[in-house]
Amino acid sequence: MRILVPFDATAPKSRLSSLLTDAERREFADAMCHDVVAAIRSAGHDPTLLATDNVDGETPVLVDDRPLTTAVNDALADASLPVGIVMADLPLVRSGAIHRLVGREDDVVIAPGLGGGTNALVIRHPDFRVDYHGGSYRKHRSIATEADASVGTVDSFRLALDVDEPADLGEVLLHSEGEAADWLRDAGFSLDETGDRAAVTRETGDR
Amino acid sequence: MRILVPFDATAPKSRLSSLLTDAERREFADAMCHDVVAAIRSAGHDPTLLATDNVDGETPVLVDDRPLTTAVNDALADASLPVGIVMADLPLVRSGAIHRLVGREDDVVIAPGLGGGTNALVIRHPDFRVDYHGGSYRKHRSIATEADASVGTVDSFRLALDVDEPADLGEVLLHSEGEAADWLRDAGFSLDETGDRAAVTRETGDR
Repeated sequence: MRILVPFDATAPKSRLSSLLTDAERREFADAMCHDVVAAIRSAGHDPTLLATDNVDGETPVLVDDRPLTTAVNDALADASLPVGIVMADLPLVRSGAIHRLVGREDDVVIAPGLGGGTNALVIRHPDFRVDYHGGSYRKHRSIATEADASVGTVDSFRLALDVDEPADLGEVLLHSEGEAADWLRDAGFSLDETGDRAAVTRETGDR
Repeated sequence: MRILVPFDATAPKSRLSSLLTDAERREFADAMCHDVVAAIRSAGHDPTLLATDNVDGETPVLVDDRPLTTAVNDALADASLPVGIVMADLPLVRSGAIHRLVGREDDVVIAPGLGGGTNALVIRHPDFRVDYHGGSYRKHRSIATEADASVGTVDSFRLALDVDEPADLGEVLLHSEGEAADWLRDAGFSLDETGDRAAVTRETGDR
């Protein structure tokens, strides 16, 4: 299946700015995107980046600098179905979660993100369109129902965990061995499990 | 399979005290526990509460008021294997997640919780013991490895989401139709999806 991977190649992950510089956030976002693309390929599917700017590498890129919802809906209008959409900030994802996402047979398959978002979709119905602005999980269920499309969900922690905030970085160190986890370790981050939920600390000084 | 459900029947969910009174926290914890027990039964397994005090109802109860790790390890020493341990604060869990937990064949199966905890286990190795204090996911992997037990994990958002903090309540309203969700709605809580992640607000005034 062709799977679109929306990727902010311009100014990604602003909510990590308390921990990472602009250049570091771009590197870390690249590493997360690499992990997602590798999981899709490893599951036997065909990733295409839907990026706000050109991206070097072997993965095909569709460049569209408009807002996420507009860019995805335009790509959907041109796509042959079924098509998948998997966000680029899911560094815990492995091939098993992609298999489960693609393996469900509903017209619209949703992998909810923590906090009411939508982290991955498989679309088999021509009238379905996305709306990523605020509470998209419930919106996507409504849009599917209005289009008379059957809806399924995928129960996956690895698909649910999108990395947006400093608190999410602990999950990457706990549950990933991919490039994003390597990048964090190389940048001096390590787990701090003294509190209620795992956090990260960064080593200061010369590296 | 027999599945132990550790349950704090005394003073549960202290981190929700900014939103709920003591009596409300006990009611809400009861409702979550009910949802977990119903999911275990619906999957065809046998729940036993491992509770800090007596609990009314149809589910068998082992009373042990010692700390969680001690109580679970004493129950494990007496249990015939395999045995499951599923926390009582997982109101998103349904039978499908229990099937996937029990369906893996490793000596120790772990369902990680958000933030490095352990929300569910299946134990088939006599030397495995638990240690729930701080970062238990990594500890349980180490303990299993030291016991020469094979380790598997279950990738489930519904098992990963334990309700500890106010931010977790939004997930209950988003993804559950069980008693815990009903309790929240009856108590005047509703979803607030205006921020980055879904939160809850509570209606004030007469109800």
